[in-house]
Amino acid sequence: MIGVAVIGYGYWGPNLVRNLAEIPNTQLRTVCDLKTERLASVRSRYPGIAATDRFDEVLADPDISAVAIATPVSSHYRLAMSALMAGKHVFIEKPIASTSDEAQRLVDEAARRNLVLAVDHTFIHTGAVRKMREIVESSLGEVYYYDSVRVNLGLFQHDVSVIWDLAVHDLSIMDFVLPEKPVAVSATGMSHVPGEPENIAYLSLFFAGNLIAHIHVNWLAPVKVRRTLIGGSSKMIVYDDLEPSEKIKVYDKGITLGQRQGSSDNIYQALVGYRTGDMWAPQLEASEALRVELQEFADCIEKGAAPTADGEAGLRVVHILEAATQSLAQRGRVVELGNARRQVA
Amino acid sequence: MIGVAVIGYGYWGPNLVRNLAEIPNTQLRTVCDLKTERLASVRSRYPGIAATDRFDEVLADPDISAVAIATPVSSHYRLAMSALMAGKHVFIEKPIASTSDEAQRLVDEAARRNLVLAVDHTFIHTGAVRKMREIVESSLGEVYYYDSVRVNLGLFQHDVSVIWDLAVHDLSIMDFVLPEKPVAVSATGMSHVPGEPENIAYLSLFFAGNLIAHIHVNWLAPVKVRRTLIGGSSKMIVYDDLEPSEKIKVYDKGITLGQRQGSSDNIYQALVGYRTGDMWAPQLEASEALRVELQEFADCIEKGAAPTADGEAGLRVVHILEAATQSLAQRGRVVELGNARRQVA
Amino acid sequence: MIGVAVIGYGYWGPNLVRNLAEIPNTQLRTVCDLKTERLASVRSRYPGIAATDRFDEVLADPDISAVAIATPVSSHYRLAMSALMAGKHVFIEKPIASTSDEAQRLVDEAARRNLVLAVDHTFIHTGAVRKMREIVESSLGEVYYYDSVRVNLGLFQHDVSVIWDLAVHDLSIMDFVLPEKPVAVSATGMSHVPGEPENIAYLSLFFAGNLIAHIHVNWLAPVKVRRTLIGGSSKMIVYDDLEPSEKIKVYDKGITLGQRQGSSDNIYQALVGYRTGDMWAPQLEASEALRVELQEFADCIEKGAAPTADGEAGLRVVHILEAATQSLAQRGRVVELGNARRQVA
Amino acid sequence: MIGVAVIGYGYWGPNLVRNLAEIPNTQLRTVCDLKTERLASVRSRYPGIAATDRFDEVLADPDISAVAIATPVSSHYRLAMSALMAGKHVFIEKPIASTSDEAQRLVDEAARRNLVLAVDHTFIHTGAVRKMREIVESSLGEVYYYDSVRVNLGLFQHDVSVIWDLAVHDLSIMDFVLPEKPVAVSATGMSHVPGEPENIAYLSLFFAGNLIAHIHVNWLAPVKVRRTLIGGSSKMIVYDDLEPSEKIKVYDKGITLGQRQGSSDNIYQALVGYRTGDMWAPQLEASEALRVELQEFADCIEKGAAPTADGEAGLRVVHILEAATQSLAQRGRVVELGNARRQVA
Repeated sequence: MIGVAVIGYGYWGPNLVRNLAEIPNTQLRTVCDLKTERLASVRSRYPGIAATDRFDEVLADPDISAVAIATPVSSHYRLAMSALMAGKHVFIEKPIASTSDEAQRLVDEAARRNLVLAVDHTFIHTGAVRKMREIVESSLGEVYYYDSVRVNLGLFQHDVSVIWDLAVHDLSIMDFVLPEKPVAVSATGMSHVPGEPENIAYLSLFFAGNLIAHIHVNWLAPVKVRRTLIGGSSKMIVYDDLEPSEKIKVYDKGITLGQRQGSSDNIYQALVGYRTGDMWAPQLEASEALRVELQEFADCIEKGAAPTADGEAGLRVVHILEAATQSLAQRGRVVELGNARRQVA
Repeated sequence: MIGVAVIGYGYWGPNLVRNLAEIPNTQLRTVCDLKTERLASVRSRYPGIAATDRFDEVLADPDISAVAIATPVSSHYRLAMSALMAGKHVFIEKPIASTSDEAQRLVDEAARRNLVLAVDHTFIHTGAVRKMREIVESSLGEVYYYDSVRVNLGLFQHDVSVIWDLAVHDLSIMDFVLPEKPVAVSATGMSHVPGEPENIAYLSLFFAGNLIAHIHVNWLAPVKVRRTLIGGSSKMIVYDDLEPSEKIKVYDKGITLGQRQGSSDNIYQALVGYRTGDMWAPQLEASEALRVELQEFADCIEKGAAPTADGEAGLRVVHILEAATQSLAQRGRVVELGNARRQVA
Repeated sequence: MIGVAVIGYGYWGPNLVRNLAEIPNTQLRTVCDLKTERLASVRSRYPGIAATDRFDEVLADPDISAVAIATPVSSHYRLAMSALMAGKHVFIEKPIASTSDEAQRLVDEAARRNLVLAVDHTFIHTGAVRKMREIVESSLGEVYYYDSVRVNLGLFQHDVSVIWDLAVHDLSIMDFVLPEKPVAVSATGMSHVPGEPENIAYLSLFFAGNLIAHIHVNWLAPVKVRRTLIGGSSKMIVYDDLEPSEKIKVYDKGITLGQRQGSSDNIYQALVGYRTGDMWAPQLEASEALRVELQEFADCIEKGAAPTADGEAGLRVVHILEAATQSLAQRGRVVELGNARRQVA
Repeated sequence: MIGVAVIGYGYWGPNLVRNLAEIPNTQLRTVCDLKTERLASVRSRYPGIAATDRFDEVLADPDISAVAIATPVSSHYRLAMSALMAGKHVFIEKPIASTSDEAQRLVDEAARRNLVLAVDHTFIHTGAVRKMREIVESSLGEVYYYDSVRVNLGLFQHDVSVIWDLAVHDLSIMDFVLPEKPVAVSATGMSHVPGEPENIAYLSLFFAGNLIAHIHVNWLAPVKVRRTLIGGSSKMIVYDDLEPSEKIKVYDKGITLGQRQGSSDNIYQALVGYRTGDMWAPQLEASEALRVELQEFADCIEKGAAPTADGEAGLRVVHILEAATQSLAQRGRVVELGNARRQVA
């Protein structure tokens, strides 16, 4: 039985509490938050769980061996580092930290102490994204592009740009689904509220080969869109997270490359042919993603294994967010990710 | 009665012929093409119209005062310049020329000779795009962004990238609809056929203020998308050209900016509020766009007026295509449009 | 302060409890259910509310002046009649009773005792349905037809046919939205599970004039559909309850009737013209329907007023369900509603 | 080489002419129409084909062995019967005749003379409908229901109700796709133009087993819908003819029947379970349906074979149209199809 504390009982914390209360090999002991009314709410709904505003007490409690942190990102580093230094395993909301330097330090500390450090990249535990990864690995062929649109009206944040709020989802999904990691990023965007960070942004991600990824995020769109296209040499995927049931559609479509013909004045050249076949929407697992990943966190603690989204995954995502933010400030100047990583180390 | 010749009877030429044959103040006299079978096709369908492979005869014919050119883009400059120098008015397929230098020379020559030079930016004569411009002018408020996606499977071209084939539509629509002109462009993209130009591309366009435009074009998508979002301070538009009837939807949605409150640790800040109201899909005019613009071309010749899409519009579009192609080759390096234009002049 | 008890804490009861706990002029005092574990659940979540399996105690409690009944339909009559006879106001799940005879007796008893009898026709308190009624009244013109499709996979019930489970929603909406009441019904359908009631059914409803209504309900459909079309002489409505935001679309479309021309062999006659104009999707109120109607119930008790969905509305709906069930058994034989009603009285 | 004449050059005749002109084993010799301007149009587009207003000349021409009739339905019987009596094979627009009595006489005459009698049930030659039949035969299991909606705004006809105009498509598709034939029909509907036939109608079709079919047709709908659901014990189909590419979707969904449990007061009974699996949209053949069926007509003449949609198929459809029209006049009274057929014989 792993004793657990949840740190932060705001927007997301209650979901952590609800799931941790039901996982067989965890025992939720304490919820920690600074606000009195939130602690009261914990006490009334979960009479058997301690509620405190003293984080140091959590750290000092020998019966708590893991913490799940759901506080604003600016506090992630401080809380997670303290927890690791107190010998606790850590599950932490995305993004893992405010800078890649902080993220790297968390990764290093967890490694040094042999503790599990998991980051809450929720989407990668959904049936849709797991199926997508499976298809990319098994039948997509060479991956040509990854294109994602995540736009809606609201919720503007005043401390971070839309990249840190929305693109973080796409970057974590991409990190999980694609076989390669990006080497450079170019980002453009704009703020439409004076003095505030960008509310619309476009990221292009370059890889070693001829794969390209692109992410469009926007807090100021009239319609909600959650759609990813993945093009491969054998198959292509449309992932629409707003579809109630067929979230993943796999198209047996593509191009076929022929021998280049002698010169021709035909505007439609003979070199490229088109192939269209069936479309298939696989049945997806319906388990709650957060439950799956908290269960995995508990299992990793017991077995000493690494979670799917470990500190390194969290670091890679923060790394790109950081580089994209730099690029954004310079109207799309390419920022190499390799260099950036070395600076961090 | 304006005597007209159509140059080029391949993919698009037959549409020019069909429409010009029906416009009251034009008389279609000649169709010119290099291919014998195409000329035979003209003769059988339009017995009263001359069919020739001699462009010089068209130029020498005093009864022909205007030509409509629908040949591959590489021949645009030569054919259009010859026609202008022979004193003919010119209607020409988009893009107007292969380089902004050529386009500028055509504009200058037409101006010098006081001839009408029209470029076939077909979409701006559709009911949907005209309505969109009307709404942008009258009720959108400050324009925040213009975001367009134009993707499908095929048709790959081997002489120009997807930008020159697909983004040219978006750039000509944008040129017509937006009150401002872009000042710089950043483009990224990739080719997935060895030795061929880019088949997927992303363009970001910067303006003097905080307007941003973005265009996603792709020849290798599993689904066809033709969707433009325009965000403004008072209204937002979704233009979906694949909708059979409600192509334009106007959303009375947006943000309201309040006074910044004292410091708050709430992650959803109080500064930005959200406004959602009715959606409205205006009835659109259904006339064929090509007919409308060829009629306008004829009327401009009679009245000595300038067409909606004149040589300058064609030049502006080629200008951006050229700059985007430069940027594409450098992974999104920003190319200023102001500088480029000066170089041309 | 109106003392209230909720009878039945199964699928829907918890929603009644949650809402009644928040309404200012009600005081939720007791929840009554026969199952021990449900009562335990009430006690843990609502420590201040009594939980009992003794309905007679509820009836005897002088501090309880109203009951909300959410038990299986077969028990509605008995529970509601006892409550009315004990002088309690009654809010009851739809359908109000198993037969129109029972429904009539409840209506009569409530009238005799001057008690409020409200039936939970939830949908009529949604923003969408209220807006639809407003449009039908103000601008639809003469109502031509009402056509509704409500199909999905599951949930089969073994005591009543799909009509009593799904069509009851459409009938209650129709009763609220249309200015006229039907005079006859014809229903067809089929059972695909041996020994079980019909899982697919089609109802046609006739009115005094040339209005026709039709309802398609199905528990065995591969896709979920919730769509109603209302055609009028001036406007037409599409109500799609699965749309996240634009649930109601109003089309300015229709026919225009001209003078009949002399005989013509044209297959498309000149008599009928077509009119198409704008489409408009009004912003809808987002309040929870159940909260709205429970508040109305409380207000009606205080003011001695009749609720929107009173016992008569519940009776009219049961009346049609009953007649449709008769018709269904005879492959669509028309059953007059007028006669049926007289039999009840 | 089969000499062919096309009778009627109005709305559909030009499509027959265009296709017949391209089929290898037919020689289109004559087009017959009563209108001078239509004959002129034939002469200008097809100089090698005779154009005449004398149907008797067509019948007398020994080089013409087959006629394709595309005239208003009221003339079908007279023209087709004359052609058969003159020894010509006949291809005729749907519905094959105005009454089942006429249709029966055509069938009998063709049989007596050993001539091919084909009816233009166009949809059954589309890739979508052929695929649907294939799936129904191979993997749908027991067919539970067939439900079709075919609604739009216009085109009102003044001689026949919407059933003869729109439901005829569904009936011919159903006749081709389903393994059984209906035994009775119940139809309801309404006219909203004084003195004109019904513009909205609902047909329920009964079969010997527990299959039920239903067709909703409407000339006065704000949106266009062309959607058919077919439910089976193993699979379910959604056929949406307005989808540009995935017209047929096959759902691996359904119910599983368990043993009835002991009595339970649970409203969701244990008897019926739900099964949901993948969805699959097969690639469809894209050949023009009319071309396919005219080719089949020619091949049947050469081989003495029967076409897919022979006179019997045409008769069956008219039979149902006739019975539905009777039922419609009596608010859904069931009309047996067996009896009706015997009356015809």
